[in-house]
Amino acid sequence: MTSSPIAHGADAPPTIRRATPADAAQVAAMVVEIAEHETQADQVHVDIERWKALLGRPDVIVLLAERRGDPVGYVSALRQLHLWTGGDVLNLDDLYVRPGHRDAGVGRQLMSALARFAEPERMLIRWGMEADNVAGQRFYRRLGARLRPKVVATWAPDAYSALLRDEPAAPACP
Amino acid sequence: MTSSPIAHGADAPPTIRRATPADAAQVAAMVVEIAEHETQADQVHVDIERWKALLGRPDVIVLLAERRGDPVGYVSALRQLHLWTGGDVLNLDDLYVRPGHRDAGVGRQLMSALARFAEPERMLIRWGMEADNVAGQRFYRRLGARLRPKVVATWAPDAYSALLRDEPAAPACP
Repeated sequence: MTSSPIAHGADAPPTIRRATPADAAQVAAMVVEIAEHETQADQVHVDIERWKALLGRPDVIVLLAERRGDPVGYVSALRQLHLWTGGDVLNLDDLYVRPGHRDAGVGRQLMSALARFAEPERMLIRWGMEADNVAGQRFYRRLGARLRPKVVATWAPDAYSALLRDEPAAPACP
Repeated sequence: MTSSPIAHGADAPPTIRRATPADAAQVAAMVVEIAEHETQADQVHVDIERWKALLGRPDVIVLLAERRGDPVGYVSALRQLHLWTGGDVLNLDDLYVRPGHRDAGVGRQLMSALARFAEPERMLIRWGMEADNVAGQRFYRRLGARLRPKVVATWAPDAYSALLRDEPAAPACP
């Protein structure tokens, strides 16, 4: 863990740069931290080697905030096809600031950096959040994001396989 | 428009197959129909030529339901990277059944065909829907999907550009 001690928190302004494959270990460590915070650590399956490959892809955007060379937070996003427009959107994945560095504008700086990345092509940025994450909603609304309630469905392999066992295939499914 | 007359509705069972670039006109027509239904037709920017290119991509999955060779509905999905697992998920985009062919199991057959497509690699299938689409939620829950409320944020270029104008760039944003 390379997290800065809490005393470093609010003094030096962070610098922000795009992560490269050389940052794989730092990124992997922070992704585990955020997953542990959300008690979903068992759902994170990406190891350092996989992160090395991911961080070399042009469609994987991870921006790192650093203080004195130590990572204090990141924002991750995927540049992905949007069928309705035929162009790309930026699907934001995680925004994370390490404990001891919060409430000092780091999250806002990371979001601004992501907007700067999206701006030349005027890509829409979008993401989902928990319905009870009121503080997050206030933060994003202040940035100018449009928020609305939705219902999100996930259909897991075990659930659809159970359905398929009971159902005859359609006549000409390729 | 090649939509079957309503009288054809419930008789012949539909066949289902993956759309190819040769189906671009049919797919484009149905996407416009669904957008008009949602009064969002002005947001659809994909023309037939663009659909020809999209339908040739391995990550664009459009399954067509046909009765006597006429398309009566489709389901579209994108196979996309999922950062938390490092693998792919199927992001369902649209499920549409033409008027006159509804309440006859076509939607369920299209969803089953999509599940059959996802099954060999046990890909998670996921999508969002309007919070007030109670009938849709009931339909998807019966298939075994897990539904939960979320808040979805979209950050449009005009909104983030306004923010960036007022904000100094972070020291080392690449």
